[in-house]
Amino acid sequence: MDLDFFFYPSSVAIFGSFRKGAIAYEILRNIAEGGFEGKITPINPKGGEVEVSGKRFEIKKRLDEKTDVAIIAIPAKLVPGLIEEIGDKIRGAVVISAGFSEIGNMELERELVEKAREKGVRIIGPNCAGIFGVHGKFFGSFEVRVKKGGLALISQSGAFGGAALAMGNEEGIGFSAFVSYGNATDLTESDFLRYFADDRNTKAIALYIEGVKDGRKFIDALKYATPKKPVIILKAGKSRSGSRAAQSHTGSLAGSYEIYKAAFNQFGAIEVEEMEELFDAAKVFEMYDKAGRRIAIITNSGGPGVLATDKAESLGLEIAKLSEKTIKALREFLPPQCSVKNPIDLIADADYERYKRTIEIVGKDENVDALLVICVPPIFIPSEEIAKAIIDAKCDKPIIVNFMAGKLVRDGVKLLAEKGIKNFQTPERAAKAFYWLSLREKV
Amino acid sequence: MDLDFFFYPSSVAIFGSFRKGAIAYEILRNIAEGGFEGKITPINPKGGEVEVSGKRFEIKKRLDEKTDVAIIAIPAKLVPGLIEEIGDKIRGAVVISAGFSEIGNMELERELVEKAREKGVRIIGPNCAGIFGVHGKFFGSFEVRVKKGGLALISQSGAFGGAALAMGNEEGIGFSAFVSYGNATDLTESDFLRYFADDRNTKAIALYIEGVKDGRKFIDALKYATPKKPVIILKAGKSRSGSRAAQSHTGSLAGSYEIYKAAFNQFGAIEVEEMEELFDAAKVFEMYDKAGRRIAIITNSGGPGVLATDKAESLGLEIAKLSEKTIKALREFLPPQCSVKNPIDLIADADYERYKRTIEIVGKDENVDALLVICVPPIFIPSEEIAKAIIDAKCDKPIIVNFMAGKLVRDGVKLLAEKGIKNFQTPERAAKAFYWLSLREKV
Repeated sequence: MDLDFFFYPSSVAIFGSFRKGAIAYEILRNIAEGGFEGKITPINPKGGEVEVSGKRFEIKKRLDEKTDVAIIAIPAKLVPGLIEEIGDKIRGAVVISAGFSEIGNMELERELVEKAREKGVRIIGPNCAGIFGVHGKFFGSFEVRVKKGGLALISQSGAFGGAALAMGNEEGIGFSAFVSYGNATDLTESDFLRYFADDRNTKAIALYIEGVKDGRKFIDALKYATPKKPVIILKAGKSRSGSRAAQSHTGSLAGSYEIYKAAFNQFGAIEVEEMEELFDAAKVFEMYDKAGRRIAIITNSGGPGVLATDKAESLGLEIAKLSEKTIKALREFLPPQCSVKNPIDLIADADYERYKRTIEIVGKDENVDALLVICVPPIFIPSEEIAKAIIDAKCDKPIIVNFMAGKLVRDGVKLLAEKGIKNFQTPERAAKAFYWLSLREKV
Repeated sequence: MDLDFFFYPSSVAIFGSFRKGAIAYEILRNIAEGGFEGKITPINPKGGEVEVSGKRFEIKKRLDEKTDVAIIAIPAKLVPGLIEEIGDKIRGAVVISAGFSEIGNMELERELVEKAREKGVRIIGPNCAGIFGVHGKFFGSFEVRVKKGGLALISQSGAFGGAALAMGNEEGIGFSAFVSYGNATDLTESDFLRYFADDRNTKAIALYIEGVKDGRKFIDALKYATPKKPVIILKAGKSRSGSRAAQSHTGSLAGSYEIYKAAFNQFGAIEVEEMEELFDAAKVFEMYDKAGRRIAIITNSGGPGVLATDKAESLGLEIAKLSEKTIKALREFLPPQCSVKNPIDLIADADYERYKRTIEIVGKDENVDALLVICVPPIFIPSEEIAKAIIDAKCDKPIIVNFMAGKLVRDGVKLLAEKGIKNFQTPERAAKAFYWLSLREKV
């Protein structure tokens, strides 16, 4: 299904109140400040004018031009009428307004769907937080704007989505799109999954779901999307109490978690257990598509190397057995105190040259699929030196980096980020990232 | 064993090179800048002067006064002789120097121990990163200085310890002490465990170990310490490859992990699986001693409430069944869209009053042992308002807070921190914190 008119629109109309702080005002502000290059039309029957960040907009009393998307933040009971009124002029509507099936107003929601179907208008929502098409500079939501990148985030919960955008942004994740789909009365998670599987700017898809509208359709969408792109799923409502809570939150029948789990496994979706893992998986899939299970660990401190090893092995990864050739080549130039067995310990005074040459030698070992490079604050040299070594090293295999200790390695982490290399904060989180990459080998 | 002379010394002598950047210089700088109020004596046979941050020190050629602690960063082969020379004047020595048993120089280490025994000097190290006695303003290590608080960190790996200090400090953890004990040739993890169990400024003890020197002694120390204080343990070298790596790192025979695990369980130690969990457990035990298993979750967004519920239940916690009285009291003042079942959803426009009253009502429910309060960036009101509600609410039960979305809730998190309430970054990490508290109920 082509939903480009939602995520790359050339015109948008916003319906609601434009006093400062009101939802429609905040969405208008986000769209204007985000640099949207299409036509923007605020609409309120009272007319007037509104100024956002130095730009003045006339508030139209009604929509009188063909427009790709309407964003609607007016009282729920007026929405079906509005859809009937503007339906011939718009292709899609994002209904922010709450007060539909989620509080028992089934009839009103049915009416909304009927009017939309009559007019051939596609609906996102109602009761949602809006959408972003980041590459089209379209920020059609009151949530915080994010950096451009490869992750499409599909969230059943608007507030979860908003928090995830803000946190992901701070973690250095770039987004292609965001959609909060609320009650999913027309377009559902399955539609978005299919759409982003083909979206040219999306490298990976992340999904927060409590339950799905239509199990069969969801399975088909998974089957369609997973061979094309990594699909990361955070399924909430897995426990008994969690499932009950989900039901009162989004009205989702969370269903048996075992069925979901089986489907995720069968089609190679990446299931994560926690919100934080969602970010880590998103980070790694913005960098790499997949990797084999045999990893080499390079570190300047033994302890973190052991922690990474433990975690990797507990996840079924292999600590690669280095070839004789690799061991010989390392032994030739490394100081005798260094350990040339995997994990490779370059010890505390490891510098640019020691890291770079080790990465290049190990990267050529055919027993190694991927490299985990750990750095605790080096003594006597700045962390940027180690970052430069990682950037400069000639290595064709995926490298995941764990620079530890916040401020003390900030400059190194910053330099890596400028080159698109994202940092994982602990050895264990870095090891887990390889696990997710390895799941894609099978797909 | 009284080790106060190490952690609350009244005098310290530092042996080594005092050119800028050298280890002894960095330790001297840390001690001087940290505000140590006792006598500080830098010592090097060449004599001279050294300036650190505006203060001038005469470098003595030898030690000629009684001194609590010597910190030694001179070539390994000279250390036993130095101990013999100064042994009558010092009570303890922290030997930073490397080059002993960890690289096969067993004989040199044996000599060091013998000299120390002859003179009745206690040794920390060798091959260690030093010690902090934070409440005595004594920063006898080159690692980054930390804020004063209740956590004593005992680390077999110096670099791990250093990274953990820096990261913990940024996470808002306060420290009472730090000890990196290296080869543990005299004092071991067991001695420190016993000492901190009785230290007046230590509220919780965190231990990073790869292996222990003496299993029997360690069990006895655990048995002694755990009834007095929470003992958090991160055991590295659990997996097959991890155990091998530990052996080449600290020479530890990591031993069968099952034996460790059984001991941790039997004596109620808090075993954490990852470095990040070590911080989270430390954070929660700086605030609370223990809590029961029945938790109430209060949130302004359904999704995170469901995620917390899932995690709590998967860890064996109970989502408390609220009493009829509580439900009635909540129903009376909460808007009808709010869910008064646990997790309690105060919905997006929840303000100061709604949070405060809910916390107070739920805090009185005898079915509830502890409260998890979640806040995603509230709409229309600043996050400080919610922080204030949590601070002002009269509630005698442990409250753990999860304010989500980084910058968007920064002001609220800051206000909470000023009152000693530490923030957990995700709903799942907050739920896990209750799990650790609940383990202490049994001790």
